[in-house]
Amino acid sequence: MFIAKVIGKVVATPKHPSFAGFKLLFIQPYITKDNKFTPSGSSIVAVDCVNCGEGEMVMFTQGSSARMTECTKDAPVDAVIVGIVDSVEVEGKSIPKP
Amino acid sequence: MFIAKVIGKVVATPKHPSFAGFKLLFIQPYITKDNKFTPSGSSIVAVDCVNCGEGEMVMFTQGSSARMTECTKDAPVDAVIVGIVDSVEVEGKSIPKP
Amino acid sequence: MFIAKVIGKVVATPKHPSFAGFKLLFIQPYITKDNKFTPSGSSIVAVDCVNCGEGEMVMFTQGSSARMTECTKDAPVDAVIVGIVDSVEVEGKSIPKP
Amino acid sequence: MFIAKVIGKVVATPKHPSFAGFKLLFIQPYITKDNKFTPSGSSIVAVDCVNCGEGEMVMFTQGSSARMTECTKDAPVDAVIVGIVDSVEVEGKSIPKP
Amino acid sequence: MFIAKVIGKVVATPKHPSFAGFKLLFIQPYITKDNKFTPSGSSIVAVDCVNCGEGEMVMFTQGSSARMTECTKDAPVDAVIVGIVDSVEVEGKSIPKP
Repeated sequence: MFIAKVIGKVVATPKHPSFAGFKLLFIQPYITKDNKFTPSGSSIVAVDCVNCGEGEMVMFTQGSSARMTECTKDAPVDAVIVGIVDSVEVEGKSIPKP
Repeated sequence: MFIAKVIGKVVATPKHPSFAGFKLLFIQPYITKDNKFTPSGSSIVAVDCVNCGEGEMVMFTQGSSARMTECTKDAPVDAVIVGIVDSVEVEGKSIPKP
Repeated sequence: MFIAKVIGKVVATPKHPSFAGFKLLFIQPYITKDNKFTPSGSSIVAVDCVNCGEGEMVMFTQGSSARMTECTKDAPVDAVIVGIVDSVEVEGKSIPKP
Repeated sequence: MFIAKVIGKVVATPKHPSFAGFKLLFIQPYITKDNKFTPSGSSIVAVDCVNCGEGEMVMFTQGSSARMTECTKDAPVDAVIVGIVDSVEVEGKSIPKP
Repeated sequence: MFIAKVIGKVVATPKHPSFAGFKLLFIQPYITKDNKFTPSGSSIVAVDCVNCGEGEMVMFTQGSSARMTECTKDAPVDAVIVGIVDSVEVEGKSIPKP
């Protein structure tokens, strides 16, 4: 899983039927560098499985494993948010959230 | 899923039988940076599942999940368009389409 | 799927039994930039499923979907050529082949 | 599999039920260059399957194969630690751990 | 599949039970550029399925397809060596091995 920040949402009216009812969030992956969070990699559209909100740090799962939640089962989904991150500790210190 | 712009189409006459009838679109992934869309990453050939057209912003699914639509089931397909993007909102503001 | 040019072939005598009889081609992925094809990304060994030849532009499938053809079924294969590209049109114009 | 160093841990209280009881470690992938370890690529959240600790070098598995351990079976997990690395030898010499 | 050079080996004593007996090699992917081999991308830990040795050029398979060999079946493995490369020919000429 990777860490990301929820930066927005995506509205798509014409879409595959299995997406009906999905909350589609727009997330920006973050890595840590010198014990700070820094954005890294492409922004992603992910299905929200844990009822998170904009600005929160989350962790998300990609690939076939993204279909292993109840809501995404058998859907053409390759990214799902699986947890809201309370804290990331590196060398015993909590990394400040961006 | 990632966001992309439909930039063209691909014609391939000799091809795997399961591709017969597929509408193959050529898409360019986009990310957001400083609240603007910017192209990022390799252009991709994707199967169209939602009847979209050139110039539209779409979201697409990759990997095994790309086989989870009716038309792509069991086909050697690793990228499928699953929605037409109406809007992407970041920090409450709609990102202008490129 | 991505677009690639067939640039050569690979000979591997000691190999997994399921590769016996496979035609292994060496391909270079291409993307489009400013309406021209340009090589991008790592050269790849792909199984040929459509009887293509050196110099041709093809499209290929990666990951588990590469096992969805008759010849690659259940084989430890992660890249297969699924079509010979006749043309790629961007904004109504055919991109010249490299 | 890739080599990584365990650099910390991740606490996520609201999360997918299948993550209950998982030890979530934060790891930094390393590659070798000129016979030295050097960090490379994005920091990752991985499930610990081998009871490792902070500072240790490990190897981890990604994608659907990350679900092939007893603890991660059928869970929406795409990264799992599968071994603690004792040594990596390149050209007959052990690479010093970072 | 990608081409790689076997550059060393990995010893991991505490590890997932399904890795018992696996020969774990450390490999460096190579691409071709201007008809020469050049290292590219991250060094990888791969299971050896074809009894290869250090210094040899091999091809390897990643992702779920890495579980399609007898020895790696159902194991949490995402990279396996599936062939020893005798030669790679580009434009009719054999690329010298690095």
